[in-house]
Amino acid sequence: MNGFWNKIKVSFLFTFFSLGIMAQNKDQMVRIAEVEIIPDYLEQYKAILKEEAEASIRLEPGVIVIFPMFQKDHPNQIKILEIYANNEAYQSHLKTPHFLLYKTSTLKMVKSLKLNDLVALDVEAMSALFKKYQ
Amino acid sequence: MNGFWNKIKVSFLFTFFSLGIMAQNKDQMVRIAEVEIIPDYLEQYKAILKEEAEASIRLEPGVIVIFPMFQKDHPNQIKILEIYANNEAYQSHLKTPHFLLYKTSTLKMVKSLKLNDLVALDVEAMSALFKKYQ
Repeated sequence: MNGFWNKIKVSFLFTFFSLGIMAQNKDQMVRIAEVEIIPDYLEQYKAILKEEAEASIRLEPGVIVIFPMFQKDHPNQIKILEIYANNEAYQSHLKTPHFLLYKTSTLKMVKSLKLNDLVALDVEAMSALFKKYQ
Repeated sequence: MNGFWNKIKVSFLFTFFSLGIMAQNKDQMVRIAEVEIIPDYLEQYKAILKEEAEASIRLEPGVIVIFPMFQKDHPNQIKILEIYANNEAYQSHLKTPHFLLYKTSTLKMVKSLKLNDLVALDVEAMSALFKKYQ
């Protein structure tokens, strides 16, 4: 009889644990920022963005992904995939020294900026979809 | 003296290994596909895409990431981040049963399709940028 109740307990705990992870993922913010850079500043901008992405991932647990790319045929068109654990993590990111340094030092380099708010199609599968980076 | 040569050997091997990984990453294909879906087919399309993404990651070592998202304010505007190890991996992906099933069954659901070829800004940092999914 004890074994039966233990199984029920384990199953309950597992359900709560899974729901926790799902809830955590459901709060996440997914975005693709589209940034057009004035060509003269491109190399300078790329160096600053690289450092900002690296520092954000290393220092902020709530910054899940910052993945900068550029268009093959228009290298001054930058796209940045950004994933934050939740809105609080994003708000706190905006106040970090590395983000503020990026923002102020690149202001004059940016011709246009478009922020696309997105939702992951399959929130539960995200770890599996990125698992090749393990 | 042997210790010295062993150190040189290890250092050479490490350099070749690192260059190998870098070369591997430099061959990669990064893309964001932008797909507009006819609203009536949206739920059906999303279900098919979910399965295709999951099967590609599970079955094809050369498919590194397939991450589908939709626009928060226009849920029928889909964006898919795709990363392939190299062009051969992409060409072989196009011939898999799961991709062909996706392509043929969703053809009538797609209003427009735009493929953006991209390059990762910091190829060497990619594992670090996605490390939170470990």
